[in-house]
Amino acid sequence: MSALSRLSLNRLSLNRLSLNQETIKQWSLPELAEGCVKAGVTGVGLWREPVQKYGVAAAAELVRNAGLTVTSLCRGGFFTAIEPEARAAALADNRKAIDEAATLGTDTLVLVSGGLPPGSRDLFAARERIADALGELAPYAADHGVRLAIEPLHPMYAADRCVVSTLAQALDLAERFPADQVGVIVDTYHLWWDDTVADQIARAGAGGRIAAFQLADWITPLPEGVLLGRGQLGDGSVDFRWFREQVDATGYTGPIEVEIFNPDLWARDGAEVLAEVADRYRALVL
Amino acid sequence: MSALSRLSLNRLSLNRLSLNQETIKQWSLPELAEGCVKAGVTGVGLWREPVQKYGVAAAAELVRNAGLTVTSLCRGGFFTAIEPEARAAALADNRKAIDEAATLGTDTLVLVSGGLPPGSRDLFAARERIADALGELAPYAADHGVRLAIEPLHPMYAADRCVVSTLAQALDLAERFPADQVGVIVDTYHLWWDDTVADQIARAGAGGRIAAFQLADWITPLPEGVLLGRGQLGDGSVDFRWFREQVDATGYTGPIEVEIFNPDLWARDGAEVLAEVADRYRALVL
Repeated sequence: MSALSRLSLNRLSLNRLSLNQETIKQWSLPELAEGCVKAGVTGVGLWREPVQKYGVAAAAELVRNAGLTVTSLCRGGFFTAIEPEARAAALADNRKAIDEAATLGTDTLVLVSGGLPPGSRDLFAARERIADALGELAPYAADHGVRLAIEPLHPMYAADRCVVSTLAQALDLAERFPADQVGVIVDTYHLWWDDTVADQIARAGAGGRIAAFQLADWITPLPEGVLLGRGQLGDGSVDFRWFREQVDATGYTGPIEVEIFNPDLWARDGAEVLAEVADRYRALVL
Repeated sequence: MSALSRLSLNRLSLNRLSLNQETIKQWSLPELAEGCVKAGVTGVGLWREPVQKYGVAAAAELVRNAGLTVTSLCRGGFFTAIEPEARAAALADNRKAIDEAATLGTDTLVLVSGGLPPGSRDLFAARERIADALGELAPYAADHGVRLAIEPLHPMYAADRCVVSTLAQALDLAERFPADQVGVIVDTYHLWWDDTVADQIARAGAGGRIAAFQLADWITPLPEGVLLGRGQLGDGSVDFRWFREQVDATGYTGPIEVEIFNPDLWARDGAEVLAEVADRYRALVL
C-alpha cells in the first residue's frame, strides 16, 4: 500500500470521530478548527462559554469554513430550581442555548439537568421539574431544528449536578416526548458501571433516542470534587469496543465524540493530544 | 413527665440504634464499649482490624460484658482476583472473617465484593467470580451461624472496590443462595440516588434478605479518593426517614447502624459525636 493510500485509510477510519473541545481546552476555537482539519477529524463538540466569548455567529462561520460538523453543543439544563425567578431564568437561558445551537448548525443540545436545590432532599420532585421544563422547551427546540438531549450523569453527581443518574431514567423522561424532540446521551464515563446499560442502549436505539455517543475513560483515584478526573481512552476501566458495538447494534451511525476533562491533557501540546486520541480511537473503539 | 422517665424514653428511642465503630474511630474498643453504654446505645458494628489488634476473643468478652450486641462485622469480600493464589488467599481470609464473626456473636459479615482486577475491564466476569466465591463460602458461614451480606457500593467505587453497584445487582447475586446464607446491606450512602431503590428494598424485604440497614449522609464536594467524605446524618442530601420507612415497611425490625467515615468527626470528642448521632437519629430517622 502506498503511503498516500495508507494516509487516506487512516483518515477514513476517523470519519465518525468528533472532538469535544473540552478535551483540548488549551486550544482557541481557531486552533481547534485548524488542529482538527490537520488531523483529519471532521466533527467537533462545542461548549457555550468559549463559543459566546468568540461570538456565536463568528464561531459558526469558522467551523463551517473549516468544513467541520458541530456534533453537539454543551450545555443547557439546570432545570431543578424551585423559585419562580430562578426557574424562569433557567428556561430563558435554555432558549438562548437552543438559538446558539441552531446558529452553529448542530441538532443536539446536551442537557445537564440539575442537582438538588439547596436544602432539598426530594429527588422525585426535582425529576418532575425536569420533565416540566422539557415540556416547555421541546417545542421551541423543535422549531429551531434542535433536539434536547438528556445526559444521565454518573450517580456521584446526583446531589450537585444532575438527578438523572442512569440511562433508564433518562429514557423514562425522554419518552414522555416525541423522539425527534427529546433524546439521550450515551456517555461511557457516566454509564460504564451499570449492568443494565446494554438493555437500555438497545431501548434507546429502538426508540430513535440516541442523540450522541460520547467517550471518556474511568480512572482512579478520583480527584477532589470528582469533576476533572476523566481518563484518556485506554487509561482506565472502560471497555470501549463493547460499548461501541452495543450502540452500533441499534443502527446508530452517528458521531462518536471524545469528551475528556483532564488537566494532564490540558497541559500538553494540543496536536499531540489529538493524535493520541485518534490512535486510541482506532485501537480501542473501532 | 419526670426527668427520669424522660431519660428512659430517650433511651428507649435508641433501642434499634447501632454505632459502627468507624464512625468514632478515635475510640479504642474499651472506650467504644463504655461510650455506648453511657449513651444508651446497645448495638455496635465492628471492623476486623481493630478487633484483631485487641484480640478477637478479648473483644468478644469486652462487648458481651458491656451488654452490647455486635450487629455486624466488616468486612469480608474482595472476591474478584483472577490468579489462583490470590483467590485462594481471599477465600482463606474470608473463612477467618467468618470465624471472627462467630466468636463476636454476630450473624452478619459485611462483604465488600471487590473491584476490577488490575488490567481487566470485564465487569461481567468479575461479578461471576463473586458468585463463585459466595458458593464456596456460604455453607461454611451457615455452619458458623453467620450470614454473608453483600453490600452494594456506590457506583463511584466500581473500578477499585466493588463491582456490585446497586441493590438490584446485590439481590441478583444473593438470590442464587438460600436467604439465611446470603443477604444484602441497605446503606443510604451507596443507594440514595437510585430511583429504583424503593422497589428493590421491597424485594429484599420480601425475600428476607435485609441483613443490615446502615446510615450515612451524602455531602459534597467529595474529597480526593472519595472514601472519607461521608456526612453526619442531616448534613447532606439523604432523606433518612423516607429510607427508614421503606425498610420498615418490609417488616424489617433489626438494627439501624450509623456508619460514617469522616475525618471531621474523628477529630472531635467521641462522646460529643455519639450524642450528636443520637440527636440526629431521633430527629431525622425515627
